[in-house]
Amino acid sequence: MSPVRVTVWGENRHEQREEHVRKIYPDGMHETIAAGIRENLGEDAVVRTATLDDPEHGLTEEVLRETDVLTWWGHAAHGEVADEVVERVHHHVLAGMGLVVLHSGHWSKIFTKLMGTSCTLRWRSEHDRELIWTVNPTHPIAEGVPHPLEIEEDEMYGEFFDIPAPDELVFISTFSGGEAFRSGCTFRRGHGKIFYFRPGDQDYPTYHHKDVRRVIANGVRWARTHRPERAYPELLRYETGEFFKGAGYRGPLR
Amino acid sequence: MSPVRVTVWGENRHEQREEHVRKIYPDGMHETIAAGIRENLGEDAVVRTATLDDPEHGLTEEVLRETDVLTWWGHAAHGEVADEVVERVHHHVLAGMGLVVLHSGHWSKIFTKLMGTSCTLRWRSEHDRELIWTVNPTHPIAEGVPHPLEIEEDEMYGEFFDIPAPDELVFISTFSGGEAFRSGCTFRRGHGKIFYFRPGDQDYPTYHHKDVRRVIANGVRWARTHRPERAYPELLRYETGEFFKGAGYRGPLR
Amino acid sequence: MSPVRVTVWGENRHEQREEHVRKIYPDGMHETIAAGIRENLGEDAVVRTATLDDPEHGLTEEVLRETDVLTWWGHAAHGEVADEVVERVHHHVLAGMGLVVLHSGHWSKIFTKLMGTSCTLRWRSEHDRELIWTVNPTHPIAEGVPHPLEIEEDEMYGEFFDIPAPDELVFISTFSGGEAFRSGCTFRRGHGKIFYFRPGDQDYPTYHHKDVRRVIANGVRWARTHRPERAYPELLRYETGEFFKGAGYRGPLR
Amino acid sequence: MSPVRVTVWGENRHEQREEHVRKIYPDGMHETIAAGIRENLGEDAVVRTATLDDPEHGLTEEVLRETDVLTWWGHAAHGEVADEVVERVHHHVLAGMGLVVLHSGHWSKIFTKLMGTSCTLRWRSEHDRELIWTVNPTHPIAEGVPHPLEIEEDEMYGEFFDIPAPDELVFISTFSGGEAFRSGCTFRRGHGKIFYFRPGDQDYPTYHHKDVRRVIANGVRWARTHRPERAYPELLRYETGEFFKGAGYRGPLR
Repeated sequence: MSPVRVTVWGENRHEQREEHVRKIYPDGMHETIAAGIRENLGEDAVVRTATLDDPEHGLTEEVLRETDVLTWWGHAAHGEVADEVVERVHHHVLAGMGLVVLHSGHWSKIFTKLMGTSCTLRWRSEHDRELIWTVNPTHPIAEGVPHPLEIEEDEMYGEFFDIPAPDELVFISTFSGGEAFRSGCTFRRGHGKIFYFRPGDQDYPTYHHKDVRRVIANGVRWARTHRPERAYPELLRYETGEFFKGAGYRGPLR
Repeated sequence: MSPVRVTVWGENRHEQREEHVRKIYPDGMHETIAAGIRENLGEDAVVRTATLDDPEHGLTEEVLRETDVLTWWGHAAHGEVADEVVERVHHHVLAGMGLVVLHSGHWSKIFTKLMGTSCTLRWRSEHDRELIWTVNPTHPIAEGVPHPLEIEEDEMYGEFFDIPAPDELVFISTFSGGEAFRSGCTFRRGHGKIFYFRPGDQDYPTYHHKDVRRVIANGVRWARTHRPERAYPELLRYETGEFFKGAGYRGPLR
Repeated sequence: MSPVRVTVWGENRHEQREEHVRKIYPDGMHETIAAGIRENLGEDAVVRTATLDDPEHGLTEEVLRETDVLTWWGHAAHGEVADEVVERVHHHVLAGMGLVVLHSGHWSKIFTKLMGTSCTLRWRSEHDRELIWTVNPTHPIAEGVPHPLEIEEDEMYGEFFDIPAPDELVFISTFSGGEAFRSGCTFRRGHGKIFYFRPGDQDYPTYHHKDVRRVIANGVRWARTHRPERAYPELLRYETGEFFKGAGYRGPLR
Repeated sequence: MSPVRVTVWGENRHEQREEHVRKIYPDGMHETIAAGIRENLGEDAVVRTATLDDPEHGLTEEVLRETDVLTWWGHAAHGEVADEVVERVHHHVLAGMGLVVLHSGHWSKIFTKLMGTSCTLRWRSEHDRELIWTVNPTHPIAEGVPHPLEIEEDEMYGEFFDIPAPDELVFISTFSGGEAFRSGCTFRRGHGKIFYFRPGDQDYPTYHHKDVRRVIANGVRWARTHRPERAYPELLRYETGEFFKGAGYRGPLR
């Protein structure tokens, strides 16, 4: 198989505005995430990055067309992402592009649009220890991941996480404060595969964590579709006995 | 338990514009659907109707607040439903209102918004016989429903139906042309319960069918929430050791 | 609807052999569990108990035939439950009897037979605090249950819990030690509905806990089938065009 | 990755006893199934066969230890499969061996043991045309499979199929008689992955069908675990703060 073409999208605002974040991620969080994917997938992946401040947020039709899997981290500026770009990404996901949504991306326009729910949760940024337990040990995303995966400190996210019941629940997190969270979830939408993974607040060095990087890389590999071409699902009319050639829709009235 | 308060929403356009539809549904499809619910639930339901041409499509904040379960049939005029009303209905579903989406409602703004997918399918209106098979026989929506439920003729809907994998697949339809369709599906979104049920093209007398009416009534009963109050899921901050009193969100930056 | 007929089955061995358990449950754990169901369901339930030492473990054909929902607590003596009785219970579950499996019942013959897996887990009895989080807030079993439900101390059960992915995941537990557990799970098997609920080690007064009792009562109410008659799924031959009258199986060879 | 090691198990009784079956499958159905896997996976698979009449049915501890994925076809002689061998296969599945169950294998001891249900269905052998529709188009098992996959004639299987709701529903079949069937289903049990695929009655040349062979090969590839070692799930005690070294179980009483 040819290498998976990955675009790592980063909001890249905290890194510019907050000294303490810049210290942890001097090249931006997106570069650290990209490095973790390269570290794990090696020659099986070609990874580039794009950020909010790029023209069209770096997510032009051309870029998306050549992206097998897009990863998404955003937080402070969800509202600044242009609706037109969100529509474009949504269209590509339903047509077959993989999507890996990270941490605070839970409240991004693209994730809430794909989920159809509020995607709200409970939270606290107080240096909780996080333990990530695998509840689906044969899932490819859990391959090579310690049970539990321990993160010394990160922001807390707790239930109720308002998402549709995931197609597959892979990981559950607990926090030192006692909260629980469905932290590794897969969803299939249209012809696209989506993986949500919880860890990664900007205030903590989470994306330097070896095992977190492994999970993200596994998620990228999993989210790549097996279908040969990108194709948006279409509403088509089929005559009786004709199963393969459909006709386009011409409106609801005779 | 108090009676379930049902609002049956109908687009009510085919009935006005097409003589052959008016013959089948002289009072409008919504009135026939409402009659079927009353027939089955009796004193356990209080049913009213609302249509596209009513002010605010009959779906004001007041009406929704007093609706336990909303049923939705639309087809020719999905585009005419005001975005503001769709937002309002969406908000009420996530806050706990039940929703029963019928037939061509699959392409309504509210259903596609809740699903996050294109909700496209294959179709043909050529008087196919439909057989509806129960694959989840202990589900309350299947109570008292023949296996199979036979509809002499209706429009055909076939796979691939671009919806999220349903939380529960209750019914599968087959058509004389050989197609298959996941025709009875439940989804939980936020604090709301959603049931999609396939039959019911305007060109056929499907909503006069005793068993179809039974399924819709079962769906209404199932979709009513057990939660005492309508509450939209909120993102809240909780201090360590504090599990019940959360604080509202104040923005992403320190 | 007529009252739900409940049989609470208890192994009743720890209570006889261990003074500290007898102190917590002087009438046996089964009586405490039964009292909790009566407390919550009142006149909507008729509850009796049965134990391992009763003839046929108190689970004769007659008893099961008149039981809508059976609850199961066992631990030290799983191996003493007669295979014949397990077969009988299994048959009744597939034919429509509800089953609520509690705590260490995870390793009972009937639960492992219904699940098909080892049903193993990680554990520790060291007075962990347990917090039970609702992840499916519209589920009838979560009705009226605090979020989180707090149990001051109980045995710890942790993942990986080797069960099939539940049809519905209702609750997730965390423990002071940091472990996570899928602690409220529903499964549909044949015509029967099954609810597994984690809390309740014999060394702790868990079944005196108001909210735990509420969950068990909710589970009992949920597990009752809507189908009118108990019917074991049968393999039947149907002629073309004949959908309702099947013929019994006569063997694999012509 | 090293080639997947496949053992194709065939009952091989119809072929010996029935002339018309021998004509379709002169080398036995198992050899045809094996050929289809080799045809599709080429050097990515090493395929051997085993049959009921082999010592220990060809499924010794050594053979299973060296089998990544086992495929199972049986029909007339389910009862002759030794319980000891069924236990052994069950143990290996929960420890990580993949299992692909074909057609009448639905009633095999190993499949019913893994499912926990009766696995009954409705059936008719009257040369129905079967159409297999993909409802999960991004699933690896659907890769390269026509939509629909058409089988000119085969035995009919119809709902209700008494299995647990599959983790993933990949295919739905319809038959010329109008029946529907969940014909491609995945299940995860313990550390093992299971795929059930419907087509393949001994009276029809189904396993010579190019697309059917493709699905089986896809299923084999999917069912191979990503975990490095076979490991049966064990019940272990973990001390507080100790997440990786568990202690074996020493009995229920203090």
